[in-house]
Amino acid sequence: MMTPKLPEPMSLAFAEAEAAQARGEVPVGCVIIDSSGKTVAAAGNRTLELKDPTAHAEMLAIREAAKALGSERLVGCDLYVTLEPCAMCAAAISFARVRRLYFAAEDPKMGAVDHGPRFFGQPTCHHRPEVYGGIGAARGEELMREFFRERRKSSPAVAGEERDP
Amino acid sequence: MMTPKLPEPMSLAFAEAEAAQARGEVPVGCVIIDSSGKTVAAAGNRTLELKDPTAHAEMLAIREAAKALGSERLVGCDLYVTLEPCAMCAAAISFARVRRLYFAAEDPKMGAVDHGPRFFGQPTCHHRPEVYGGIGAARGEELMREFFRERRKSSPAVAGEERDP
Repeated sequence: MMTPKLPEPMSLAFAEAEAAQARGEVPVGCVIIDSSGKTVAAAGNRTLELKDPTAHAEMLAIREAAKALGSERLVGCDLYVTLEPCAMCAAAISFARVRRLYFAAEDPKMGAVDHGPRFFGQPTCHHRPEVYGGIGAARGEELMREFFRERRKSSPAVAGEERDP
Repeated sequence: MMTPKLPEPMSLAFAEAEAAQARGEVPVGCVIIDSSGKTVAAAGNRTLELKDPTAHAEMLAIREAAKALGSERLVGCDLYVTLEPCAMCAAAISFARVRRLYFAAEDPKMGAVDHGPRFFGQPTCHHRPEVYGGIGAARGEELMREFFRERRKSSPAVAGEERDP
């Protein structure tokens, strides 16, 4: 497969996703840059390692960025993630006032941007980032396919299970 | 106002909400009990103190309970919260496999159980707790009204702002 050139932060997000996969986690990675383009946070999914159902890549990156910037509002920051955010992460992205959201693969099963709740279109959503989907979609989809293929092999019972264990 | 008798965990959740208010936070409190009725987590909103947009009472309580139980799934646990959960918290409640959700006041502005995304009714929601709303509703509504009344007095510009600063 030809690998199209990705924006640098999305390449970093994929490196985080691959590191998560190597730890046995669902392969999702996230990077946040500030308005000058500096990386302020990078994280991969750690729900199993931390035994924390809220430890999605986006949540960890948002908390890390807020700490780095000393503010619970990430004004002017852009967030790159390898999978369409779920409802938890989409709402956190809104609360954090993220300026632009870039995501790679769609997630029909748990996504909340283009699927299910479509959170940013809800009247109860009070800050909407600009959203750019499909940035590195093929690579994101392949990562997820590979993950579920491996998981089905090792544990057929969980074949139909959702993204986040 | 007559105060109807509340289930013990909801009384504790209100104590957490009042402690949050005393810290200058939006007054929301949350308690999680295990299947034997033992309190495994209690938390109030700390978004300002922690400079963390994800530090809603429910999120902090879920993380605390998961740590206490040594598992990212709070199987058999019930969650009590003084305000209808937002989309972030509703999704986290689902991921954590909470058995029953009890909440006090409705939140038409940010709620995601009976408002907006109605997360638990979405096809992208893969675990639905039993939901009991309105348990201590009058007290929860009064707490929120009082908070916004005080905030309008001290800072008229934020009068129309949402729940979580």
